[in-house]
Amino acid sequence: MDRMDDTLIDVPRGLTNVVAARTELGDVRGHEGFYHYRQYSAVDLARERTFEEAWHLLLFGALPTADELAAFRARIAAARSIPPAVIELLPAIARLTSGGDALAGLRMALTAVAAADGARPLYDESADARVEDAIRTAAVTPVLLARLHALADGREPAQPRDDLGYVAGYLHLVTGRVPTQQEERALSAYMTAAIDHGFNASTFAARVIASTGADLASAVGGALGALSGPLHGGAPSRALDTLDEIGTPDRTDEWVRRTLSQGGRVMGFGHAVYRTEDPRSRMLRAFAEGFGGPRVDFAVQVERRVQELLAELKPGRELHTNVEFYAGVVMELCGIPRSMFTPTFAAARVVGWTAHILEQAADGKILRPSSRYVGPAAPEPLPARQEAVR
Amino acid sequence: MDRMDDTLIDVPRGLTNVVAARTELGDVRGHEGFYHYRQYSAVDLARERTFEEAWHLLLFGALPTADELAAFRARIAAARSIPPAVIELLPAIARLTSGGDALAGLRMALTAVAAADGARPLYDESADARVEDAIRTAAVTPVLLARLHALADGREPAQPRDDLGYVAGYLHLVTGRVPTQQEERALSAYMTAAIDHGFNASTFAARVIASTGADLASAVGGALGALSGPLHGGAPSRALDTLDEIGTPDRTDEWVRRTLSQGGRVMGFGHAVYRTEDPRSRMLRAFAEGFGGPRVDFAVQVERRVQELLAELKPGRELHTNVEFYAGVVMELCGIPRSMFTPTFAAARVVGWTAHILEQAADGKILRPSSRYVGPAAPEPLPARQEAVR
Repeated sequence: MDRMDDTLIDVPRGLTNVVAARTELGDVRGHEGFYHYRQYSAVDLARERTFEEAWHLLLFGALPTADELAAFRARIAAARSIPPAVIELLPAIARLTSGGDALAGLRMALTAVAAADGARPLYDESADARVEDAIRTAAVTPVLLARLHALADGREPAQPRDDLGYVAGYLHLVTGRVPTQQEERALSAYMTAAIDHGFNASTFAARVIASTGADLASAVGGALGALSGPLHGGAPSRALDTLDEIGTPDRTDEWVRRTLSQGGRVMGFGHAVYRTEDPRSRMLRAFAEGFGGPRVDFAVQVERRVQELLAELKPGRELHTNVEFYAGVVMELCGIPRSMFTPTFAAARVVGWTAHILEQAADGKILRPSSRYVGPAAPEPLPARQEAVR
Repeated sequence: MDRMDDTLIDVPRGLTNVVAARTELGDVRGHEGFYHYRQYSAVDLARERTFEEAWHLLLFGALPTADELAAFRARIAAARSIPPAVIELLPAIARLTSGGDALAGLRMALTAVAAADGARPLYDESADARVEDAIRTAAVTPVLLARLHALADGREPAQPRDDLGYVAGYLHLVTGRVPTQQEERALSAYMTAAIDHGFNASTFAARVIASTGADLASAVGGALGALSGPLHGGAPSRALDTLDEIGTPDRTDEWVRRTLSQGGRVMGFGHAVYRTEDPRSRMLRAFAEGFGGPRVDFAVQVERRVQELLAELKPGRELHTNVEFYAGVVMELCGIPRSMFTPTFAAARVVGWTAHILEQAADGKILRPSSRYVGPAAPEPLPARQEAVR
């Protein structure tokens, strides 16, 4: 009943810089080119720890001991089975969404899993049950994605292997083969670095829905919806499309000049948050260079030339590569098909979403802002009808 | 690039009273017991106009002429066909969600329709195509809900009838019979009054997702997720559960005293926005009284006694019935089963959501607030590992 006497509070359009929540999960410090999960640098975690360790850190507040990590991995493996009723449904979902709509397919599949599991509203659940839901939802996501992808390709889906780590297991599901250690390390760095990144629109959507006490899968579904929006960013395939359009290194200059003179954006460059180089880019470039080869050389050369040309054509604006650019290169090097780039990002980010959902549910207050009415004064009397309407 | 220099703006927790958007669609004036769609009283519209007229008003900014209304109805009827691939999928969805999870079923079905239609991101669409999407999504919603409901009941779904108005057509789909004029008028009043009601959590969730430029069905899916949350409110079946628990009029006093002394809430009473009587309640009570009969008498008597007892036990707090109370009574009188109460609300509210989605998409700026990090200072160096971890 506390809203009635209050007057509206005007803030910047789009809620820019408005503190919508307090969080212990992490932060992005754009000026410093730095972001962190809890108290640790996200890039350090991505480079030096496994995906599961970062996941444990976000969910439980501490890096796991070796015993805790083993137990957590067993828990993840146990949480990824697909209910038989959903297995039956997946071929139809794959047919409907095979036109590149992988996130919509995942949304349907996750809703189906939640229904089959008998999902309950967050506010009716204990803290332990919420953690169980969070692990369940994140653990089943890559399995659903890989299965939908295989079905859309007309292949028999691979079975999850308990002897592989989380990221190697995911690569195996997507590509059908056990990855090399180099591939595993590179993709683990990308996926770990993609778990969370401040209060982006998908994370915020998840928290808004979670704040009503809805079930966890409803909140993740909203996040997936937001992630599919062009303004969310995070579409690493577009950066590779840029490489394809350029074609060969000698055509870089001509392509960049033409694109910019036509008002186009060079995908993979520029980020809303970082003034410095995106720390994720720097890390992923190093992993890409570890692979070597003409494709990596081309990417590095395009990056350098685009930056030189942007400095010449848009002086005063420092434009660095963002995470999309080398994320695309790394995923390609690991054998992930381009249609699975954004789904792979989602398979990592779902861990961050679920951690945010648990934090919001623990807060317990609904996220319900107001709006300012700017239409014609009301009430006006209803006009008389011209004619009788049934 | 404009976010980098800015400092965080602290606002009330839960974004209470924060202006997240400007809107021309309407407003709720809680002090006055009044709310409106554009410049007209929503209750006047509900009482005196058809659902489709209010829909047209919200979508196009003006009440339709008779010709415009006829054209709009034809457009709605043409937009409600279910693609064959989705028809095939619905039995499996109905099986999965028959345990009372109708909103999850609708979410899956709407995603499937969008995928079958080849849904496109809002920001890639013309204004006309967005309106087309909005009508499509809202028009197909009641058909999907009724079909899922029939399938869950093991009945053959009824076919939409072009000779019935929107609300009569919906009642026919749900109950299998053509409603009386009294039923049609009462349910039309409820559904029209339920189209919109300020910036509630589901509407806000829809706008957050739409602001990324995602496709319209993604935004509606997020709204449905938020609507399923216990804090969203809008569960008219709970008010009838209260009547059932009381059982007979003479047990009202004892039941209310016991419930309140145990700290329980009496469902159907109290609202976060209105200090006065909820204008929707007053209108729906009048429609219920038009039906008459012992059930209505019981509801009216319970309402009076609960208010008297609340005034005695919680002095100083004016607690009136909210919309849930008589909404449940009216839907029951119209023959709608209790499991379809919240879906019926959703079938009305989807019109409001889609109007808000179009307004947000026209704005074009992403709704992306910030958070304040309140965890331990970062970065801390990564601790050395106890033991080797694969």
